[in-house]
Amino acid sequence: MTRPGGRSARVRDAVHRAAIELLVEGETDAAIPRIAERAGVNPTSLYRRWGSRENVLLDAAVTRLRERSPMPDTGTLRGDLLAWAARVERAMAEPDGNILLRALIATMSTTARPAEHLRARADDLRTMLDAASARGERTPTVDEVLDYVLAPLYLRALFGIPVEPGAAETLVERLLQVGLAGRSGGA
Amino acid sequence: MTRPGGRSARVRDAVHRAAIELLVEGETDAAIPRIAERAGVNPTSLYRRWGSRENVLLDAAVTRLRERSPMPDTGTLRGDLLAWAARVERAMAEPDGNILLRALIATMSTTARPAEHLRARADDLRTMLDAASARGERTPTVDEVLDYVLAPLYLRALFGIPVEPGAAETLVERLLQVGLAGRSGGA
Repeated sequence: MTRPGGRSARVRDAVHRAAIELLVEGETDAAIPRIAERAGVNPTSLYRRWGSRENVLLDAAVTRLRERSPMPDTGTLRGDLLAWAARVERAMAEPDGNILLRALIATMSTTARPAEHLRARADDLRTMLDAASARGERTPTVDEVLDYVLAPLYLRALFGIPVEPGAAETLVERLLQVGLAGRSGGA
Repeated sequence: MTRPGGRSARVRDAVHRAAIELLVEGETDAAIPRIAERAGVNPTSLYRRWGSRENVLLDAAVTRLRERSPMPDTGTLRGDLLAWAARVERAMAEPDGNILLRALIATMSTTARPAEHLRARADDLRTMLDAASARGERTPTVDEVLDYVLAPLYLRALFGIPVEPGAAETLVERLLQVGLAGRSGGA
């Protein structure tokens, strides 16, 4: 993630933390003044920087969810995908990870903003896949990773279905089995 | 769908229609009195029947989304899956279908209710798959259909990603290609 440094970064972190805390505590409609109060920041600086509570939430969710499941570098594509999928699975199993994903979707339903979270994920994955091809490994497309691995994990998270043990591994193996044979693109 | 008959069914339809209209018009937090007013029904009967606005929304969404993509019966599993996936894709492309899915997820995040929508979908699919095996066709599991076909379509719908032409067909072909070979179960 690229971030403004110093004080600006500290304010951003404090605001993200405040917005997420309020979500987790059930204040799903907390407005900017409430978030600013919790963060100990002047509301005007939130309005100036984010413009709306939806944008604060979107920024907090995109940032935190990516921090929760950073791109691993195990030296093999299978290893990277397995580690990444396991991290996504864990993040979704934690209450606030799950709440963040829901908040992201609820937020996007109320704004015309593009699917930044998914685009951020796609960028992370592209880096992983490029490194794998650079090592000479055959790689699936980013869209295939989203369809085979992320979509099923998000389906479980969003509909409150318990993730069966080994689900992440099963999904990755499917991707490698077909994604590398087929190449029929996804989203 | 099983429904109570006669007047009771008409009231239920009127309430569903009212709840969905209000969502589509942007009144995402319409409470029971407002829904009752729009439906021309006494609020007390809504409280008696559904108990909360979340339950009204959940019932409306589950019912309507299933009506939007009923189970086809083409005589072959591939034909059934292709027709069903195309209907789901169309339903998600319509604004109110998309809004309903979001409402369903937002609602479930605020209630302890199980994922009734997905369970209903799974029951419909089981019927389709049972008919196929009865015809002697090799069939994937319900969980595989959810992972390979429904999850990627919902990912596109929830994150506002345009569905590429032929996506539903691509997803179904993947399922038939692997689901019938593998059998590694999903959620």
